[in-house]
Amino acid sequence: MQNKILRFDSAAIVSSGSAVGKKETQGPIGDCFDLHDLTDRFGKNTWEKSESEMQRLALNVALSKIGASENDVGALFAGDLLNQCVGSSYGLLDFDIPYFGLYGACSTAIEGLMLSAMMCNARYFDTCAAVTSSHYCSAERQYRTPIEYGAQRSPTAQWTVTGAGAFVVKREGDVRITEALPGVALEKGINDPSNMGAAMAPAAADTLLRYFKNSDASPADFDMIVTGDLGYEGGDILCELLLAQGLDISSRYNDCGIIIYDKNSQDTHSGGSGCGCSAVVLASYLLPRLKSGAFRDILIVGTGAMMSPASVQQGEAIPAVAHLLRISGAQKGE
Amino acid sequence: MQNKILRFDSAAIVSSGSAVGKKETQGPIGDCFDLHDLTDRFGKNTWEKSESEMQRLALNVALSKIGASENDVGALFAGDLLNQCVGSSYGLLDFDIPYFGLYGACSTAIEGLMLSAMMCNARYFDTCAAVTSSHYCSAERQYRTPIEYGAQRSPTAQWTVTGAGAFVVKREGDVRITEALPGVALEKGINDPSNMGAAMAPAAADTLLRYFKNSDASPADFDMIVTGDLGYEGGDILCELLLAQGLDISSRYNDCGIIIYDKNSQDTHSGGSGCGCSAVVLASYLLPRLKSGAFRDILIVGTGAMMSPASVQQGEAIPAVAHLLRISGAQKGE
Repeated sequence: MQNKILRFDSAAIVSSGSAVGKKETQGPIGDCFDLHDLTDRFGKNTWEKSESEMQRLALNVALSKIGASENDVGALFAGDLLNQCVGSSYGLLDFDIPYFGLYGACSTAIEGLMLSAMMCNARYFDTCAAVTSSHYCSAERQYRTPIEYGAQRSPTAQWTVTGAGAFVVKREGDVRITEALPGVALEKGINDPSNMGAAMAPAAADTLLRYFKNSDASPADFDMIVTGDLGYEGGDILCELLLAQGLDISSRYNDCGIIIYDKNSQDTHSGGSGCGCSAVVLASYLLPRLKSGAFRDILIVGTGAMMSPASVQQGEAIPAVAHLLRISGAQKGE
Repeated sequence: MQNKILRFDSAAIVSSGSAVGKKETQGPIGDCFDLHDLTDRFGKNTWEKSESEMQRLALNVALSKIGASENDVGALFAGDLLNQCVGSSYGLLDFDIPYFGLYGACSTAIEGLMLSAMMCNARYFDTCAAVTSSHYCSAERQYRTPIEYGAQRSPTAQWTVTGAGAFVVKREGDVRITEALPGVALEKGINDPSNMGAAMAPAAADTLLRYFKNSDASPADFDMIVTGDLGYEGGDILCELLLAQGLDISSRYNDCGIIIYDKNSQDTHSGGSGCGCSAVVLASYLLPRLKSGAFRDILIVGTGAMMSPASVQQGEAIPAVAHLLRISGAQKGE
């Protein structure tokens, strides 16, 4: 297999925006987000339309922060968890921007950022945008059961984040995407759709092992090594899998699904998940810290479980993928 | 809006492979395809797994034609019509290749080829592959009703192609991807899921108008201007929409959904559709003609309708997108 780490001279995240629901607003980083609606509805009459509206709002706020308009953006990379990715296709219809639809499950935010960085760095476009979302209510009824059924959740289950994150990427900026390593799809026999963390941890381990094997960096070089949505269960498995291979990331490790909710008070079991999870935590919690200089360098690993309800019912194990980005803030001496 | 036509010095389709079902084998270009199974099952016990198996076979045959292995390929771009794109995620699990999941509905083949060309041309990878599929039986039960119900089809309905196509892209080769114009998602009020051609035609018209407005080329410069799966209904609408804007492509126009089935004998109503439609027609009918010199230059416009059954039930109109590639064969004097 090819293990080439892609290195970029000219790719920077110049703006980001987020829109979230009630539970995210009430969580430990609730003050960080740009927009929220405590009804989770965003003025729409179906959960799917609410999710689309969050995408529209998140991209609008990301563009408005830098005084940019749709005319400045050369390409949109977007996707979500809904069947046929309708969260994105409807949510972004207002924008007259060439549209690349993605499906990387919960890794979509990082997949979109990676492609945006590649496009800007190669000068195909001056400006790209990546947008993604998830919504607890639309995800529950599509993947599991409508929330009205009041189904019992297992201890390893995660809570789908209601939120959308948008990123604007240009060639120059303070917060730069300096390296990328796309993930390989794999499955290790997990077929429990209530344990996404376990299904995705091997993919994250594979990507991180390939990264450190082919890089001069060590875990201590990073302020944080953060996964998208492994949660408590998957995060523990990831650290164990890596330790068994001689790689100890535990002192630097965190997970967006752990960051976004309070374990004790919010009853989200194994933590947050969904395309929106890594998107809003990166957009509104991690990127501001890279911009302020509080963080110098992070690795973020977007994790996605690429099963469908039909494939699970047919007894198939759950394939997963994990895409890695190195994001660097203002460097010392600059 | 940005209307930049991307131009590539170094992007070529060096191999392609196709696997199709019974109706495609019995159609007018049935002899062109690499692999077929008259049971449509490809040895699997669900239609979803059959679709995945077609993807695996198509990529295998494309790689084997040039003596390449998975180790030679730096990135895979893949997607399909199934919920959560499980046709691709399961079908390509065997391949240890970094995986970028796409969702462009029926435009996915061209979206994947476009991204592959961009990656190779920018030297991120030496070799990329794009794979996509659709299956009549898995699509019917997901989007409409299981085939066992024997539902009546409307005259404007199209027949989802059972087929998978795979493409291998490198920097050098006889058949080159010379230009690309990504499409903008738009909808023009069509909300009839049995009339995808009408929903997608405005997107194809938008992309072609933007192409000819920003290019020195005219329709007469191409041996064929071919859309992915507008079928008879959508193809007529496209030509009318363009003519109203002063652009006459009728003498060069064709559609993969028209090419693949015989209108009189195969009872497919408005023609073929699906991710597999443009993929297998390009892989096994158009590319060999570009390689032999029978065609010098074509425009292919991948067309995708990005609704879901849920969005249609909620009364939403159907968004569509159309991605354009210029593919050039061996040139005169070379």
